[in-house]
Order: sequence, then C-alpha cells, then structure tokens
Amino acid sequence: MNKAFYDSSFKVGILGGGQLGRMFIQEAINLNVQVCILDPDPEAPCKNLVSEFVCGSLTDYDAVIAFGQDKDVITIEIEHVNVDALLQLEKSGKKVFPSPALLQMVQDKGLQKEFYTKNNIPTAPFHLIENKAAIHNYRNEFPFFQKLRKGGYDGRGVIALNDPEKIENAFDEPSVLEKKIPFVKELSVIVSRNEKGETSVFPVVEAEFNPHVNLVEFLFSPAQISASIERRAREIALMVADRANLTGILAVEMFLLEDETIYVNEIAPRPHNSGHHTIEANITSQYEQHLRAILNLPPGDTSTIKPAVMVNLLGEEGYSGAAHYEGMDEALALPGVYVHLYGKKETRPYRKMGHVTILADNIADALGKAQKIKQRLKIKSK
Amino acid sequence: MNKAFYDSSFKVGILGGGQLGRMFIQEAINLNVQVCILDPDPEAPCKNLVSEFVCGSLTDYDAVIAFGQDKDVITIEIEHVNVDALLQLEKSGKKVFPSPALLQMVQDKGLQKEFYTKNNIPTAPFHLIENKAAIHNYRNEFPFFQKLRKGGYDGRGVIALNDPEKIENAFDEPSVLEKKIPFVKELSVIVSRNEKGETSVFPVVEAEFNPHVNLVEFLFSPAQISASIERRAREIALMVADRANLTGILAVEMFLLEDETIYVNEIAPRPHNSGHHTIEANITSQYEQHLRAILNLPPGDTSTIKPAVMVNLLGEEGYSGAAHYEGMDEALALPGVYVHLYGKKETRPYRKMGHVTILADNIADALGKAQKIKQRLKIKSK
Repeated sequence: MNKAFYDSSFKVGILGGGQLGRMFIQEAINLNVQVCILDPDPEAPCKNLVSEFVCGSLTDYDAVIAFGQDKDVITIEIEHVNVDALLQLEKSGKKVFPSPALLQMVQDKGLQKEFYTKNNIPTAPFHLIENKAAIHNYRNEFPFFQKLRKGGYDGRGVIALNDPEKIENAFDEPSVLEKKIPFVKELSVIVSRNEKGETSVFPVVEAEFNPHVNLVEFLFSPAQISASIERRAREIALMVADRANLTGILAVEMFLLEDETIYVNEIAPRPHNSGHHTIEANITSQYEQHLRAILNLPPGDTSTIKPAVMVNLLGEEGYSGAAHYEGMDEALALPGVYVHLYGKKETRPYRKMGHVTILADNIADALGKAQKIKQRLKIKSK
Repeated sequence: MNKAFYDSSFKVGILGGGQLGRMFIQEAINLNVQVCILDPDPEAPCKNLVSEFVCGSLTDYDAVIAFGQDKDVITIEIEHVNVDALLQLEKSGKKVFPSPALLQMVQDKGLQKEFYTKNNIPTAPFHLIENKAAIHNYRNEFPFFQKLRKGGYDGRGVIALNDPEKIENAFDEPSVLEKKIPFVKELSVIVSRNEKGETSVFPVVEAEFNPHVNLVEFLFSPAQISASIERRAREIALMVADRANLTGILAVEMFLLEDETIYVNEIAPRPHNSGHHTIEANITSQYEQHLRAILNLPPGDTSTIKPAVMVNLLGEEGYSGAAHYEGMDEALALPGVYVHLYGKKETRPYRKMGHVTILADNIADALGKAQKIKQRLKIKSK
C-alpha cells in the first residue's frame, strides 16, 4: 500500500523557509502533512514550525541531495536552487514539483522568453544578448528593459534603458533586452495542475507597483477588467501551465496594453506575492492549491469570496535592526483587516516583513483601508 | 519599554497541545507570536509546530509552575489544569487568561450553576448533591440529568435519570442534579473580552448532537432562529462574560425551549468545538479572537462571511490504530469544503480526529454536502 499524505512517515520537503514556506505550512497543518525545510538562514521564518529544519545552502548540490533523500515530495518556495540535485532526486524516483526542467527554464529569463515564442505565448519582443556591447546593435529600437538572464529577484537585475545614452549603465552580462512597451495594467493569474492533469485557475488580479523599488504596492482582487480580458488572461495562464508541463502552482505575470493585447511578462512556479490575498479572499488559497497539486489531490474551488486589496509591509527607509511595528492596534481595529507578519527578526529598508489583506464589499472600500494602513502601519527598528 | 507580542523574546504558553492549540498556532503565526506548549502526550498534535514543547502533566503543580516561569502570557486549551499553579503564577505577575478564578469555577459544574443563579443568568433548575442516596429526596421531580461536579468532559460524567428506578445507575459522587428540560435547539455563542474591557460576540450557532455519544454531529452557522432570540442569546453570552470577569474567549452553550426561554447549559473559557467554522465562515476566527483578547488587542470583526455547516470527523466504531482516511479525494473535490485533520496518529471509536467546514450560499446546500461527507469520509485503521 502506498503511503498516504497524512501518514506520519510521509514528508514534504521545501527548498526555502521564508514567508511562502510559512504560509504553506499553515495550510499543510490542515491536512496533517509533515513539512520539512531546507534554508541557509538559521533563523528562517519557518524554523520553529516544522519537525525538521535543516540549515544549508539551496544552491549546494550535496546539501539538496542530502535533504531530499528521505522526502516523498520535494517542492520549492524560491527558484534559485540547485537544479542538478533536483534532477538527480527525480531520477532516483522522488517526486519533484515543479519539475527540475521547468525550474531550469524559469531560472534563465532568456530560456523563459524562448519558451514563450516557441509556444506562441504572447510576450514583449526581445533580443538575447551576451554583453553590454551588443546593445549597440539595437540602437534604433529603444527604449528597452535589460534583464539579467540569471539571478534577478524582486526587481534586482532589471534596468530601464530609455535611450542609447544609457547604454553605459547597462549590465555587461548575458541578458534579455526587452522592448519597453507602454502598458495600462499589470495582471497576474495563478494556475495549478496536478499529476492527473486536473487544472484550476484563480481569478485575475491587478498589481500596482511602486516604481522606486519595483515591488507590489497594492494588489487588487478581482482585477478591474472586462470579462473578455479576464477570459483571455486565464486562457493564456492555462496555456502556459500546459506547455510548461506544470505540476504544482504557477503565477503568470502579464502586461495589459492599451489595445487590450496581453503579454506574458514572467512566470514563477510557486506560491506568489500576487496570491497572498487568496488566503482570505478566495474559497481555496494558493497555498492549499499548491499542496493539493503536489499531492495529486483534486484542485479546490478558486472562486472569490469577497473583493480584496493586499498591501505589502515593507521595512521603512532609514531603519535596520530588530523590527518594531507602529500602528498595529489601529490596523487591527479596522474590520476586515488581516495582518500577516513573516517572523523576520531584522527589518531593513524595503524588506518584505509581512502583508495585510483587506476584505470589503467593494474594491474602493478595501483600498481606502489599505491606504490608511500604508500610512499608519510602519516597520521601524527600536 | 514593554515587550511587544511580536518580539522574539515574547512567549505565549498554552496548557494543552491538542487540536485547539494547533488551530491557535495557525493563527498565532500570522502575528508572529511565539507559542510554547505543555502537554502530557509526547506525540501531542502541536508538538512539531512550536519552538518549545514540554512534555508534562497539566494537573501537576510543579510542572505548570516550571512551564509558566518564562512565559509572558499563559493560556489554556483544556480546563483540567492545575489551578493552584496558575494562581501562583498570576500572583508572581504573569498574565494568566482565562483567570485562575474563572477556571476554578468552570472546573466544578456545581460552582458553575451557583454562579448562574447568583448572577441572574437563566439556567435549568438544579440541586447540588453529595452522593447517590441524596437523589431520593427529589423523587417527585424526575426526570434529571446527573452531572459530576468535576472531571466530566465531552459527554463523559453525565447520565440521564428518567425515573426513580434509574437511581441505581447514578454516580455516587458530588454532582449536579439538573432538571431535564425539553428543548428545541442547542445554541452556542462565543464572546471575547480583552483587558481593556473591549468585548465581541460571534453570531449564534446551532448544534445538532449525536445522542449516542453526546458529541456535536452537525453545527449550523448562523443558527436558524428569530432575530429576537439571536439578540437575547448574544446578550446572555455577553452578560456571562461580564459577570465572570473574562479575559480571553468564552463559549456559552445554551438550550432554547419551546416557549423561547433560553437556559445557559455550560461555559468553556477557551476556543470551542462550536467555533471551528469561524476559521473560514467569519471575518475573524475564534482562534484569532482568543489571541487578540489575551494580547489586549482590539477584537476583530465577527461577522459571518458565508453560511456554514461544520461536521466533526470521529474515529469509526470498530477501528483502533494508525489512522487511515477513506473518501478524502471525494471530499476535497466538493467546492467549499475545508478539511482539518488534527494530527492524531491513532484513531479510536468516536475520537475527534478532525473536522470539516462547508461554506455555501445557504445552509441547505452546505448541509447536503456535510451529509455526503459524513457518509463517505471515514476514519479507520489499516
């Protein structure tokens, strides 16, 4: 008889023990799934919430192999992990979701872009370049975004090149040189797929970015878009999941252009910042959906329960050290406000320290509260 | 400067590490509150989810004192704990919620009944008796429920005495002899109160008991009662919280009689089986509300989001051993179904192994799914 997910010997191993792992654990508790964590930070947010916490590098072949040895399913909460080790674990019969092949593609923005074109998935026009000098070949196509093929994260590794004069600021590394396209909205769609091939798709959400730090400032669920755009965005997301042979969950970030064209920007095969609100705002959360997908369980209902706005709690500029939260009582006194702190001891400017989801009867009410919280709830150091 | 609840040195200690503690931990993670557990079972459901798990007796004075020593707030998930130790910890300056005085009263069903009468809280007529022989004094008042003053739990320690011939079956211990009153519904209301005196009250719910094992079979939220009964039930619950000087959360179980009289049956100053559905069905869950109350934070919004039915998952008759769940895929495939397994390794007949909450647009739809789940989702041993 096969092990069942609730058996005490069944183990899900996660590479990474940050906030995504933490929220995944909160859901895994419901199905009595034993979670084990590998993370390089001895004080990682998941540390005290699991039966097994291993402090080790996610990019170290031996560390990942050793960690995966006694796990039944291995998954990730960050893409920057040692794929060779995951390939080896997969070969040895372990279930690794998302697949190492998908991770390999996602780790390299150049391969990602080639994947889109190969599969007729709409995406902004681009060139793959080896170094800074190559940018001169495209002088008459400006403006561009230059994105490092590897290692970028949360806005790092991306630079706007608005005209050829800016080439001197460019990265001198293998990159994607992507046509800067004016867009009207940034959308995100989360899809899931299990081994049986059962898929689900969450309602489309809309992100408002803080241009200074390239982090989500507000997230709106549902997106304020027409039914036909909603439908098309979902179709694209499902197509990506299908072509990428997904098992697990996948966030598809998109640009909506003035003429209603949708371009896929990038994908992340894991729970995503643009899905935090699903914990309270949707029947099934992205974390539960991820769990269901990797355990080959039927997908949950993704319907929206109530409109929501999500706001990231970022460390205040000018403060580093043990985190101190100002305005917490005031925030918690507002009805429909859900505070999620990530358990990071030290704050730093713009570090993601938590998020707040606000449910309301309409987006305008939720946004009003979100703005209040953004003004009042501050993360400083003592 | 006082310690804040999210500081890494701030600790909430819970006496008891079962399912209630487990669901409390899931909420405490959101506010980054460090939870520590004392439980006699080395394999208690909370064991692997906390930074500190102490295996020890909840009724042992020294064990409780030692555990409480370095905690900032001490709370409970079961009433059968050593109150003298809690009194001592309170005297030494620890915050103990619910108060040891309230726990003392709740541990003794005789004191509970006297508390109701002293405070004009409506309750079924009763006599306090020392032994079986005393029942003969009330031969002309039958039928009765006899309830042991101390040590009863989940239906144990209660016996129906329908006529004087049954006296031979009675307990020969100090008991409450309570007039058996025909009722039309069993209601439950959960209230909370923080140190500032801020209170909240959840919508009234209705429980359908399984008469064989005296455990909740289905729980309906909201209760199918008139607005005036709803109002009166809430008022009574708030009055109990006020008179009992509550800090924390309190479940007030009530009987609704044919003539619309409401009697308080019993109270439990902790998260309660009749509040599990609040995790998904209400803006704020009972666990978050408990946390907010004991941390002196403002109470959250208790509004109902969607109608819900909750069903307990009990170990199937005739099976003992490592738990095996039949029909799990089928249950999870139903939309709006939330499965909560409690992480108990061994099943036993009627052991509470988990619960399922079903959200729907109306109670009838939710009940339909709940009945299906009750038929199909079975807990056996391999």
